[in-house]
Parts: sequence; structure tokens; C-alpha cells
Amino acid sequence: MRVLGIDPGLTRCGVGVVDGTVGRPLTMVDVGVVRTSAGLPIAERLVTIEKGLDAWIEEHRPDAVAVERVFARSDSSTIMGTAQASGIALVVAARRGLPIAMHTPSEVKAAVSGNGRADKAQVGAMVVRILRLTELPRPADAADALALAITHVWRGGAQARIDAAAAQAGPRRTSYPVRTR
Amino acid sequence: MRVLGIDPGLTRCGVGVVDGTVGRPLTMVDVGVVRTSAGLPIAERLVTIEKGLDAWIEEHRPDAVAVERVFARSDSSTIMGTAQASGIALVVAARRGLPIAMHTPSEVKAAVSGNGRADKAQVGAMVVRILRLTELPRPADAADALALAITHVWRGGAQARIDAAAAQAGPRRTSYPVRTR
Repeated sequence: MRVLGIDPGLTRCGVGVVDGTVGRPLTMVDVGVVRTSAGLPIAERLVTIEKGLDAWIEEHRPDAVAVERVFARSDSSTIMGTAQASGIALVVAARRGLPIAMHTPSEVKAAVSGNGRADKAQVGAMVVRILRLTELPRPADAADALALAITHVWRGGAQARIDAAAAQAGPRRTSYPVRTR
Repeated sequence: MRVLGIDPGLTRCGVGVVDGTVGRPLTMVDVGVVRTSAGLPIAERLVTIEKGLDAWIEEHRPDAVAVERVFARSDSSTIMGTAQASGIALVVAARRGLPIAMHTPSEVKAAVSGNGRADKAQVGAMVVRILRLTELPRPADAADALALAITHVWRGGAQARIDAAAAQAGPRRTSYPVRTR
């Protein structure tokens, strides 16, 4: 299973591609950021993000896309741009019919480090270990995108096993698909 | 000048098309809403908005697009969806190379009613008067989109006159184009 993780942002949109299945080592395929200049009109920045994410999907052909779920927080001046960028990410993936999942930051922390309140450094160290990298990719948005993709492989895999067990047990499924978009 | 006004929203995205120039009566060309069902995944809802807005532009060929500027307010549970929808609106217009302006709610109120703190009813009554309608279009999102389009015709027109005067006065222009996207 190949997952594209997207950490949405207007200035830096983190992107990370991970290959793998639950129970086997995961592999980093690619990582980076789609950048837009703060000096450009916001509409042009969003079009740049759209084109950038489209190019990542085109190149890596993921089986699923995991996008960080964005929450309204009054203490953030960048939240509107982040929300707009996340909307673009969702549309780019949905237009291609790709399964989309949204994971919250604490879900990602819990999946990767075992602690929903882990700090950046702990999560980063686990990303390096899980993907057997020599160093943590920079900037942080790129590393966060990898953590999202890892989370999705693991959660998606676990869910697939539950679904398979439920299907074997009989026609009455009580579990839900992980595609919680 | 033909302006498409867009009042972004995830459930109802208001759209209104107005023809006109400053100093002459304005005409409503069309008004409506792009609706999406709350039962659908958010990514599909955003794709529906994208297609809906694209169809409005395709049909009415506006010279410019005016989008309501969205602000982060912690008291709103729908603000993230509104921000995502506004991002889609900006991308749809920018992809076609259309000039885009964003106007705040108080700019719209001030332009249409002369009072930046006017209530919904006052603004609605002025939209009916300015466009010589028999009644206010419903829902409110549709009427708000018309108010945005009116605002843009008037602000754009005024700015065009200032630019023209500045151009006549000499090569040193101190004014900025109204395309504040």
C-alpha cells in the first residue's frame, strides 16, 4: 500500500510518500514540500498548491491520501490559509477518486510514538526509526507528512484486518471502513 | 462589467451575477446557491462546489469574481468548512485567469447600505432597491452574493476612475489596482 501524506499549509505544504503494510518495515519513497511565496495573491498560491499536489500524485500514484485534519483555533493567524490549503488537498485527491482519510495531530502522535501528547522531537525520532532514515527530513512539515502517511498505513492496515475478520465471521459488519473523509 | 459574487459555504455557497458600471443602474443576471449535502464526505462536497462554481463561470463568463473574505472566529463551528469552500472558489477563478477581489462583510455593508454595521435586513432591502427586484432572493447566501457583486462593481469602478485620473496626471501612479486578491 502506498500512501501520500499531506500536511496542509499555505507557505509550506508537507508531502511524504510511504510504502508498506502492517507488520512489515515501511519504506519512504519520497518527501518534500510544496512552497508558495507569501508575496503572491492567495488565489495564485492555492493554484500553485493544487498543481504541486497534482504533480506528486501523478508521479507517485498513491493508493490512498492522508490529510491532517485542521481545527479552528483562535490563537493561530495562519489557520485560514491552512484550512484553504487543506480544502485544495482534499479536492485534488477526490477528483482522482483516491480514498482519503483525515487524521488529527494527536492521532498521528499516538500512532507513531504511542503517546498522543508526544512532542515534535519524539515524533521526529520515531519517524526516523520507523522509516530507517539517517536523519529527519526538513522542514518539519515534510516530516509531519511522513508521520501522517505512516499513521495511515498502520490504521488502514489494522482496519483492513478487522474488516476481513468481520467478513469471515458473517455478513453483519459492525466496523466502518477507515475512509473517514 | 459583469461580476460573479461568491459567498462561500460548505452547505450553501451563494452565487450572484451582476452587470453594470458605476453611475448607471445595475442589473441582476442570475442568482442562486451551490448546495452540498451534509451527509457526504467533505472532499466530495468540495468537489461538488468546485464543479458548481465552474459551471456558473462557464455559463455567465464574468469579467471578475468577488469572494467574501473569511476570518477566523472561534465562535463558529462552520468556519473551517467556509474557509475550505473559499479556497475552492479562489482556485476556480484563478485557474481561469479571472481578476479576483476579496471584500469583507463590513466593506460590503458599507458599500451597499452606507453603513458598515448595517443588519441583514437593511442590506437586503438595499440589494432589492439597487437591482430593482420585486423581492429579496433566498436563501440569505444568494442575496449576500449579489451584495458582494454590487460592492465589486462600485469599488472596481471607482478604482478604475482613480487609475484613469492618475494615468492622465502623469506616469507616477500612487494608487493600487483593486485586485486585492
